[in-house]
Amino acid sequence: MEKSVGVDLGGTKIKIGFFENENLIKSISIDTNLAEKGKFIVSDICKVVNNIYKPNEIKYFGIAVPGPVLDGVVYGAHNLGWETIKLKEEFLKYYSNSKISILNDANAACFAEFFLLPENHKNVLLITLGTGIGAGIIVNRSLYIGSSGAAGEFGHIKVSDGNKRKCNCGLYDCVERYASATGIQLSAVENGLNENISCKEIFDLAKNGEIKAIKSIDLMIKKLSIALAATANILNPDCIIFGGGVSKSSDYFLNKLETEFKKNTFRTNKNVSFKTAKLGNDAGMVGAVLAAKNNIWLKFIRLLIIFMIQIAI
Amino acid sequence: MEKSVGVDLGGTKIKIGFFENENLIKSISIDTNLAEKGKFIVSDICKVVNNIYKPNEIKYFGIAVPGPVLDGVVYGAHNLGWETIKLKEEFLKYYSNSKISILNDANAACFAEFFLLPENHKNVLLITLGTGIGAGIIVNRSLYIGSSGAAGEFGHIKVSDGNKRKCNCGLYDCVERYASATGIQLSAVENGLNENISCKEIFDLAKNGEIKAIKSIDLMIKKLSIALAATANILNPDCIIFGGGVSKSSDYFLNKLETEFKKNTFRTNKNVSFKTAKLGNDAGMVGAVLAAKNNIWLKFIRLLIIFMIQIAI
Repeated sequence: MEKSVGVDLGGTKIKIGFFENENLIKSISIDTNLAEKGKFIVSDICKVVNNIYKPNEIKYFGIAVPGPVLDGVVYGAHNLGWETIKLKEEFLKYYSNSKISILNDANAACFAEFFLLPENHKNVLLITLGTGIGAGIIVNRSLYIGSSGAAGEFGHIKVSDGNKRKCNCGLYDCVERYASATGIQLSAVENGLNENISCKEIFDLAKNGEIKAIKSIDLMIKKLSIALAATANILNPDCIIFGGGVSKSSDYFLNKLETEFKKNTFRTNKNVSFKTAKLGNDAGMVGAVLAAKNNIWLKFIRLLIIFMIQIAI
Repeated sequence: MEKSVGVDLGGTKIKIGFFENENLIKSISIDTNLAEKGKFIVSDICKVVNNIYKPNEIKYFGIAVPGPVLDGVVYGAHNLGWETIKLKEEFLKYYSNSKISILNDANAACFAEFFLLPENHKNVLLITLGTGIGAGIIVNRSLYIGSSGAAGEFGHIKVSDGNKRKCNCGLYDCVERYASATGIQLSAVENGLNENISCKEIFDLAKNGEIKAIKSIDLMIKKLSIALAATANILNPDCIIFGGGVSKSSDYFLNKLETEFKKNTFRTNKNVSFKTAKLGNDAGMVGAVLAAKNNIWLKFIRLLIIFMIQIAI
């Protein structure tokens, strides 16, 4: 029996999943300790893991991180207080027998959701609508991470002419200032709703016809559709999947979003299908483990398949 | 000696290049006959080609087309008057012994320019600034065409809040309404310059300090930088190359564009380098031939190299 661990490292919670073969047998959530620039995060994770599995029995260890990752190095994860950190090396100190994979959290989620799609999908965009907005990209059936591990910074696409809302990244009018949970809350407050209202409450109000809430979500839809249209014009994907906390309210916004998207995108993308993520909050953990398992033989087999397809067409 | 033909099919001119091995030995330009929805275009090309080479001695035949292409089928090329057309089949009627490749013109140009870059480049965006705006994308050292052959529709990214300028595609405020030759002319007229002014004249005026011309090009730079920033946020490329007629004035706008781009893009793209295309108007022809030559053995070798690299890292 093959034991693996998948970790989804978030700014408020860390989810740790324990797998036997393909099955998630246990999942533990702990608070993220942000003290001293997140220096206790790695040891906190190890403590929890070592309570359940012996270090040398873990075959695959995958960690999903909220920041750009290239070759095991995290290039800043501001929600954790991290600057550049050699995370793979850190974990190898504790788990020298494991195959360790570090990847961006949206990429991990995308990888996991992609595995659940029918075989005919090959170019997929996953958008995670949470506190911020991330994206994972599959092109030609492989995860695409870009030149410095920072592909899919969808949340920072500019969607307004003026400099109306400043983003944490230093830019103005990034789509995540309008379409993340935080962005929707900003609009709600601007529209006169209570300052402490949660994103879920805004959606609940909108479903009940409350006009300020509807207006806030309409703005989210409008701005998100512009960034999605731009992205689809570039990637020409076959489907776009929505994950993250806000996607739990997709029954309210997904159809409207698709209609608005089709108004803004080039005609060649009118058939792009919109889906909601299936794995919910587990996607990061599952994707991290899948990526760790995605060893060179799997890569070889996949490249061989791509080669066969290219000969065939 | 290996004989090949590369064709760049434009809305006003068709360029036909005759190659011996790797060398372009002759190039002929003819007017594009748009009569009867472009039905004479293929036979016009064949007449010119057959005057120079015998049909059965042409080993590789590449055709670059201004529209989305998938598996030898062109899905509409409005500048030529074409609806969906099985172009590879059309050419196979005349050149049954040749290896024929049909691809989008921006993709062809991108493919050609990519071959001239140093080995360390693997994710590249080529922007062609002409009458319209196109884009070609290289990801992981391969041409990326998307799910329906329509990746890189960069020209139709929306770059304004209002519905100010209608585009030929039916959408409003596509970047090509501001940053193509046509777009720059529109701005110049709005700013009070003569209706019949050419794009080159606008750049010449701007270089001489004429304020209306400067304002027109500043708007081009501003809007183009927004679309480039969005695209780089998604693709995280290592370089962006500018081709097409407008790029001849890159000495005036490229540095300003790079500065503006860095103001609008996510921090991870601050090191993306800006370059001008080297092949000029030959890029489409050269890329089309290279694509036709890019046979399954080359694909196999490339996949093998990618595989070796993936093992190594």
